[in-house]
Amino acid sequence: MERSNGQVAMGTIPGGVLAPVATTFAADGELDLDAFRANLDWYARSRLDGVVLLGSNGEFALLDPAEKEATIEAGIEAVGGRKTVMVGTGAESTRATIALTRRAAAAGADFALVVTPHYYSPRYDHAAYLAHYEAVADASPIPVIIYVMAAYTGVDLAPALVADIARHPNVVGIKDSGGNAPRVAEVIARCGPDFGVLAGSASFLYPALCLGATGGIVALGNIAPDLCADLQHLTLAGDHAAARVLQLRLIAPNAAVTSRFGVPGLKVALDAVGLRGGPPRLPHQPLGERDADEVRRTLREAEIGAVAVG
Amino acid sequence: MERSNGQVAMGTIPGGVLAPVATTFAADGELDLDAFRANLDWYARSRLDGVVLLGSNGEFALLDPAEKEATIEAGIEAVGGRKTVMVGTGAESTRATIALTRRAAAAGADFALVVTPHYYSPRYDHAAYLAHYEAVADASPIPVIIYVMAAYTGVDLAPALVADIARHPNVVGIKDSGGNAPRVAEVIARCGPDFGVLAGSASFLYPALCLGATGGIVALGNIAPDLCADLQHLTLAGDHAAARVLQLRLIAPNAAVTSRFGVPGLKVALDAVGLRGGPPRLPHQPLGERDADEVRRTLREAEIGAVAVG
Amino acid sequence: MERSNGQVAMGTIPGGVLAPVATTFAADGELDLDAFRANLDWYARSRLDGVVLLGSNGEFALLDPAEKEATIEAGIEAVGGRKTVMVGTGAESTRATIALTRRAAAAGADFALVVTPHYYSPRYDHAAYLAHYEAVADASPIPVIIYVMAAYTGVDLAPALVADIARHPNVVGIKDSGGNAPRVAEVIARCGPDFGVLAGSASFLYPALCLGATGGIVALGNIAPDLCADLQHLTLAGDHAAARVLQLRLIAPNAAVTSRFGVPGLKVALDAVGLRGGPPRLPHQPLGERDADEVRRTLREAEIGAVAVG
Amino acid sequence: MERSNGQVAMGTIPGGVLAPVATTFAADGELDLDAFRANLDWYARSRLDGVVLLGSNGEFALLDPAEKEATIEAGIEAVGGRKTVMVGTGAESTRATIALTRRAAAAGADFALVVTPHYYSPRYDHAAYLAHYEAVADASPIPVIIYVMAAYTGVDLAPALVADIARHPNVVGIKDSGGNAPRVAEVIARCGPDFGVLAGSASFLYPALCLGATGGIVALGNIAPDLCADLQHLTLAGDHAAARVLQLRLIAPNAAVTSRFGVPGLKVALDAVGLRGGPPRLPHQPLGERDADEVRRTLREAEIGAVAVG
Repeated sequence: MERSNGQVAMGTIPGGVLAPVATTFAADGELDLDAFRANLDWYARSRLDGVVLLGSNGEFALLDPAEKEATIEAGIEAVGGRKTVMVGTGAESTRATIALTRRAAAAGADFALVVTPHYYSPRYDHAAYLAHYEAVADASPIPVIIYVMAAYTGVDLAPALVADIARHPNVVGIKDSGGNAPRVAEVIARCGPDFGVLAGSASFLYPALCLGATGGIVALGNIAPDLCADLQHLTLAGDHAAARVLQLRLIAPNAAVTSRFGVPGLKVALDAVGLRGGPPRLPHQPLGERDADEVRRTLREAEIGAVAVG
Repeated sequence: MERSNGQVAMGTIPGGVLAPVATTFAADGELDLDAFRANLDWYARSRLDGVVLLGSNGEFALLDPAEKEATIEAGIEAVGGRKTVMVGTGAESTRATIALTRRAAAAGADFALVVTPHYYSPRYDHAAYLAHYEAVADASPIPVIIYVMAAYTGVDLAPALVADIARHPNVVGIKDSGGNAPRVAEVIARCGPDFGVLAGSASFLYPALCLGATGGIVALGNIAPDLCADLQHLTLAGDHAAARVLQLRLIAPNAAVTSRFGVPGLKVALDAVGLRGGPPRLPHQPLGERDADEVRRTLREAEIGAVAVG
Repeated sequence: MERSNGQVAMGTIPGGVLAPVATTFAADGELDLDAFRANLDWYARSRLDGVVLLGSNGEFALLDPAEKEATIEAGIEAVGGRKTVMVGTGAESTRATIALTRRAAAAGADFALVVTPHYYSPRYDHAAYLAHYEAVADASPIPVIIYVMAAYTGVDLAPALVADIARHPNVVGIKDSGGNAPRVAEVIARCGPDFGVLAGSASFLYPALCLGATGGIVALGNIAPDLCADLQHLTLAGDHAAARVLQLRLIAPNAAVTSRFGVPGLKVALDAVGLRGGPPRLPHQPLGERDADEVRRTLREAEIGAVAVG
Repeated sequence: MERSNGQVAMGTIPGGVLAPVATTFAADGELDLDAFRANLDWYARSRLDGVVLLGSNGEFALLDPAEKEATIEAGIEAVGGRKTVMVGTGAESTRATIALTRRAAAAGADFALVVTPHYYSPRYDHAAYLAHYEAVADASPIPVIIYVMAAYTGVDLAPALVADIARHPNVVGIKDSGGNAPRVAEVIARCGPDFGVLAGSASFLYPALCLGATGGIVALGNIAPDLCADLQHLTLAGDHAAARVLQLRLIAPNAAVTSRFGVPGLKVALDAVGLRGGPPRLPHQPLGERDADEVRRTLREAEIGAVAVG
């Protein structure tokens, strides 16, 4: 990834390890932007390559339009050009996606991460998804990254469709959260080295990098940013033995903040390591005490401890 | 369903045949509220019992908040108290659902139809859905109807969960679009006669009514409102032979405007019968000519012709 | 259904209410044909129209070829021409299906119930399923019934494919266990009155009959044969009010012996009503005591009691 | 993998690259064991570590019991101790699985590969699968390997269940065909280095090996055995750059003989490279000419050519 001073040129290939940061709420359910800025300032001083605002882990689907704008502005300001900033700008309609993408660009985002529209997905064929991404990429002042999150959307874009979308010069990469290795390999084989492929979870960051992925957007990066960054550095340095050991170590804590307990688990983990977690937004329910203990126990067993904040 | 002059009391059981009306767009993609009002005025003079604004067929997921408000106001005004008006007010967050429900109530809606939140559905258990619906029902000035639309949301609420939600006095019914007869029967058996069960498609309106459903919200009601209303009247009158023949006749045209061609098919069909269809909103793609011909042919074969508008 | 003395002519439309009987095993896991004959003799004196040997409830997939033959012979002998006898003869290969169908015919079966092949189902398209059923129907001395059991096979034949298969003169009907009312209606609309449609569960027998189904093959018929037969008689007699009440009453006990507890639940229920249940075959595990109590409690609540055997 | 002269000790960890060989049929649909022996003799002289008889690619589900025995005997004889021989011995019942496992052991098989029972899978919980595998492992004279093939069975064993089964001393490994990298990593993390993990497809052999898998059972090994063996050798030798290039090269031809065209594609490919393919068994349909051309074109593009047989 070519970048300096937070400036990302058109056509830049996204890469490195980024955390899709949590959005923080106060006890009354309202946005807590002070907590948000505090977390982001700390990430900006970690070994992460960047952050993603308004990702799935950021509960983007539960935010109002005005809250999204406030979150983008607070996040970009807090990072202050020290790291790459991607913003999740995907919405159900092409029109709303374009509008939010433009706002994110105006606020200084480096990349737009555009989740697949999904409510009417049984109606959306190859042509519909291609037209959607082309329209967004045409209108976007910043490079666009396809975001496939089948666990939440039910939509898995076929590698052939990804390759067709990738022909647009302003579509520069994909984040795939599925973990299916043959699919990752096929996307890389079809799209070539000028297209960034980002693993969507720390649970398969190492094998994805082996296959040629350029990085990852990993929820565990919220909790253990340096370990996640190390996993990429070890792999790029050719230390496969150490990378493999680290990858296996990250499996259980990663599950605790993603597939097992989701955003509520992520927030418990943030509090556990000394960052700002707080409650998730409804209909997300806070974890019960037993599950919260399980999250904390899992972090301890993986030797993921408190961070030195401040 | 007890109602008069468009007034629906708290605790009222929803019933009858309603059309989940299409939202209309101009060629430039903007809302076309004149077309919308024209369609609604015509439905208000049909044998339908009511309409649903901002349902799945109304492309609610593709509308901005301001467009939703404008659509609600235009629709309620056009109906003018002649029919029951339900409004789809479900959003991903509990908070946004409550806000839109209150706006719909203030505008004069009779019922709020609240689709299951779904983006984080792997995270939402029995307790989360129960808490969501209870919070909405507590806050809603108008009766709430659960809306299960598994084809688009991937969420099928278990009948035991529906029964738990139904204990709230302001939750008065369910629309289930799945067509699974044992599920419909189990909901009816568990929830009893004071809970309205609405078939979510004309494709199973007759068997659902046989089981004790109180009505249906059926996309085909946009195109053939009187035939759909007749199906309920024949069944309630005990003319099962005629109801069965009519039900079988409606299978193919219903599929054309729902499972086969979706909202784009519905819009072709609206134009075909003389109402206002127009383009769907992106990422929906307009039907190609071959598929559009197939929609029109299917309507002709079912002897569904032009309506006398005006 | 035209039949007398157990003779079923080619082209006969299957109908009425049949029980897919349990196969009985001794404590050592071997076939217990005495218990099997005792159950069948009792069914032959009930108001059922027939029985199905080697259905899913008969654990056909867990029987060796020699056991299948012994079961067919014992079953047909025990029924002694008093009822229609269908035999599940479907296997994964076309060749094995034909072989077992011929053996069942030679033993005196009235119909062959042929489950969709499924192991390689991602490879089987419209042409493959059509060729399979045509080859079996060509080779079968007895009429063939398509058996769709998506919960166990993952295969749902499209109604258009069913209609193509149904053109073969020796394919006379379908058993569909899915309960999807629009699908049942579409099959009836496409295949016409000369094709038998059998509901695959007591949970939707009444609405299926309303739509024009000719009967049902229902696991609950093992436990409450006369109630299941009554449901069809009430419907055919036009007493929809009573049929509806009975249908709702059967939902919970039906679930106890099908979707909730499966064959192990069915066997507990058989023992509970005084017929011969015994253990299921491994890998089926016998129900634990708590689940077994739940089955018995559910039967009592639906007022399904002991039968007068002998 | 410790082995010599085809002898595999209890507790041996399975590893290396094996081909799940096709079963060959003559034009009349009967087994063609001469063709089968010819293919196996050729594989025995390749760089493969072994073969699997009666796997999914061997159409085991379409073979009669007597044909299975003949295939096992012919295959083991043709290999003649030159390579490891695994045999697919899984059946739906525990009893039939044990019987076939014993026959395979008596015939000289090195390992039994036991697919998950699946017909009644909605009924099989953790306890049922654990009991099944323990009973088979207790009774088996040879080491047992769990076989997860979700694309055909719909069954994905949770890593925690795999770890519980793996505690049995006679269960020595797993073949997982799903390609889900986090799942592979979790099984390795939970089961430790004394448990063999075999990738079930050439499409993810390299990343699986990176994670610590011990080898693979890969359909493409039927067509390009030396390339598949090379992929493991390159990885174990630490030549990740070359391994990565080879992995990407194998994606398209692997799909042609697995997910895209299945066993019919595999048979076209066998004929294309000069081995014995012939027709698949019904309900498998032979590929049409256009698809067959596509298979051959894909092989050519990956530079997979004719083998020197004889």
